[in-house]
Parts: sequence; C-alpha cells; structure tokens
Amino acid sequence: MKIDVLSLFPDMFAPMKQSIIGKAIDRGALDFDVTDFRDYTTNKHNNVDDYPFGGGAGMLLTPQPIFDAMEAVKEKSADKTTGHVVLLDPAGKKFDHTDAERLAQYDHLTFVCGHYEGYDERIKTLVDEELSLGDYVLTGGELGAMVMIDATVRFMPDVLGNRESASGDSFQDNLLEYPQYTRPADFRGMKVPDVLISGNHGKIAEWRLKESLRKTYLRRPDLLEGRQFSKEERDLLDDIKTEEADKN
Amino acid sequence: MKIDVLSLFPDMFAPMKQSIIGKAIDRGALDFDVTDFRDYTTNKHNNVDDYPFGGGAGMLLTPQPIFDAMEAVKEKSADKTTGHVVLLDPAGKKFDHTDAERLAQYDHLTFVCGHYEGYDERIKTLVDEELSLGDYVLTGGELGAMVMIDATVRFMPDVLGNRESASGDSFQDNLLEYPQYTRPADFRGMKVPDVLISGNHGKIAEWRLKESLRKTYLRRPDLLEGRQFSKEERDLLDDIKTEEADKN
Repeated sequence: MKIDVLSLFPDMFAPMKQSIIGKAIDRGALDFDVTDFRDYTTNKHNNVDDYPFGGGAGMLLTPQPIFDAMEAVKEKSADKTTGHVVLLDPAGKKFDHTDAERLAQYDHLTFVCGHYEGYDERIKTLVDEELSLGDYVLTGGELGAMVMIDATVRFMPDVLGNRESASGDSFQDNLLEYPQYTRPADFRGMKVPDVLISGNHGKIAEWRLKESLRKTYLRRPDLLEGRQFSKEERDLLDDIKTEEADKN
Repeated sequence: MKIDVLSLFPDMFAPMKQSIIGKAIDRGALDFDVTDFRDYTTNKHNNVDDYPFGGGAGMLLTPQPIFDAMEAVKEKSADKTTGHVVLLDPAGKKFDHTDAERLAQYDHLTFVCGHYEGYDERIKTLVDEELSLGDYVLTGGELGAMVMIDATVRFMPDVLGNRESASGDSFQDNLLEYPQYTRPADFRGMKVPDVLISGNHGKIAEWRLKESLRKTYLRRPDLLEGRQFSKEERDLLDDIKTEEADKN
C-alpha cells in the first residue's frame, strides 16, 4: 500500500516510524510519504491561509497550495493518481474500526490534514470522503491522520506478526475484553482470581466469556444490541443481570 | 496545569512540542513531562510485560513498573500526587469534547499509555477513569493520549490566543460548521457563493446559520435531537427539509 499525507507539519509524523508504520515499511508492505503543501504555494510569502469571505474570525486554508500539492502527489505516485482521498474534518463521518478495515483494502490512500480554523470549501472537490476522529476539536488534522493510519495499517495483511494478530483485541465479536492478569499471582496483596490459576481450561474460558459479557453489559450495552447470542451467552448474561441487580 | 504521561515510547511525544502543547508550555500555562516506565523495572532484563494467567496469546503489562513509575511521578510533582489519572483503554468511555472541557479543570493530569495487548487488571487500582478514543484498536495508547491532551489543552484559559479562540469551532452550539470560502473569489472556475461577497451582513448570517443547520441535519441529525431551536432556526430547518426532499 501507498499512503500519502498532505500536511503543514511533516515532522509530526516522524514518531510513526517507531510504531506499526515503521514495521510495515520495513516489511515492504507500506510506502509512506508526507508532502508539505506550503512548498507548493505560488504567492511570495508562502501563505497557505487567508481571511474568510463574509467576515468572521480565523483563517482558512486557500485552495491553490493543496490543489498543486495533490498534482505533485499524482506525479510522484506509481499509479499516477492520489488514490482514495480522505479529508480530516470534525464535521466528517466518525471513524471506527469498520472504516479502518475498509480503508485497508485500498492500494493508495491520501490523507489531507488541515488546521482547525477550516478549509476553503472548494478543497472538498478533491476529496472522496471526510472523516472525523470524534466529537472534539484538535489543533490540526495530523493527530487524526496518525490515528487513522495506525488503525488502518493493523488491518493490512502481512503487517502484524502472528503473535500480535492472534491476540484477542477489543471489538472482535463486539464484546469488550475480559480482565487480564499476569505475574506475580500476588502483587502487594492484590491476588489474581483463583480460576485463572486453576488449570481448568473450561472454567477459564467460561469466566472470560462471562466477564467480557459483564463489562460490555455495564459499559457498552449498545454493542450488545442486535447481537446474536449463543445459549451459553444468554444464560451467562441472565446470571450477570441478577448479580449486578443484587449489588445495587 | 501539570500533565504527566507514562509511556514506553516517550519520543513519540516530541512532535507535540510543535503544536498547541508547545504554545502552552511557552506561555507558562503547562508543565509537560513524559516518564518511561521501563526505567522503573526491577527485573534484570527490564521486561515490562509477561504472559497472561489462564493462557492466551499476547503479553500484558505487569503491575510493578507502572506502580513504581507512578510513585516517581508523585515524588517529582509539586503537589506530591499523580493528580487525576486517566488510563488509555479501548474498553473505556469514549472521549468527547465534554471530557476535554472537564479534564481542563484539573491542576494535574496523568495519562497512562499501554500497548494494545493489555494491562494487568491490578494497574486499574491506580486509575481514576478509563478513556478510549473510539471504537478501533491502536498499537499503543500514545496517539490517544496526544489527541486527548491536544483537545484538553485547547480548553485551558490563556492557551489559545484571541484570534484562534474567537473562531467558530465545530460542536459549539451543537451545530456543524457552515461551508467557508477564502480568496480567490473564482478559483479555476469554482466560485464563492454570491451572498458571501454581497456585503449584506444580515443575509450572510442567515446563509451561514442555514448551511450549518443543513449540514448538521444531513450528516449528524443526532446533534439536533433535544436541541432548543429559535423561531428563525425552526423556519430555516423547515425550508431545508423541503429543499432536500425536492432533491431526491
């Protein structure tokens, strides 16, 4: 996969090399390139922003540098396109794991990062979709792009090693992960639940399923709506409801 | 405000100095410190993780290094506490702008970043709340902490300059932002809407309100639920519904 980023702060992406992106690049699975669109301004002060028409505070990104930087991305790319273009915008669709999985299917992605004061609307003609990280405002799109790239690259084949991909992540199967414990069995008086050191694999599996269901029921009941339950899951969930009701 | 971060990858936070965090530090409004908890391991290989009790793939962060690093944070802090402690965890409450505003009220915050394979459950006894960036899995908590810190610091008094704080951000007033335009009025044949260059401030304000309502109605109707509307807003929304129905 090729991932391009358009940003005014290319140095912000340097630490990604330490993360999964670095691994993907090393394995030859990813070609990652950040373009500073300030380099493509045609005005003598290299300005990338200007005042909004109609008045108001804040400056907006002007179309010219981004249009020309996108042309440069095309030129540099093996496929001579900008691929699937994502604009980071707080008014966009909220990014989630289904988007990560979907974006991982493209051969070429381009992320356009603005800063928080906004874009000239005409920039959106270059864009295939607008995505937002969540209902909050950030100084720029850079952190959002890094998060989306990290989440997406995890879904690419051949990026995560076996050890890692085999781990039981949250959101698999729409249940939150059960509580986990490692050594020591007694840490400063806090003990690991007996069942986990019992060696009884059936009991361990049941405890884990029950505690996953409990955590999801208590924290994220929305994830349980519309879910298909097995008979065992339905019985465990009934027990949990009784237990939690008794606590209150 | 003091912000501490516990992380195995302190270099990942370097680019934050370029952003709003750097500004806040320069203005004396923020003291920002990242502690590598690997420095606090007591085992000879400096291991921070171990196998889960009860079996399963993946490694978990062990309690000892994080407990001891938290003690070190306390010692180093003027208030001799770890302040309000946030654990980055995909099973936590989903972070939004109300959390950012709430966290900005604390004098001292500590963010604990794990890596995605999980924490020993006993680490949670050190924690005041678990927060998640969204329904997706990231390689580590570092990007999540950066996002939450960026969004939070924006709500601190004296951090954003007047020019910036005055800009109409998304989510203020629970409406998405209207389309914005800057110079040139005609960019490669794409023209700015006439009303914005009319000089008629009443018409401009009405157009902006209507387009904010339209975008929110089309993309995020959830934001409109339970909102108090003025008479003008109700009338505009009725027009929008008619216009959008006619389009289909």
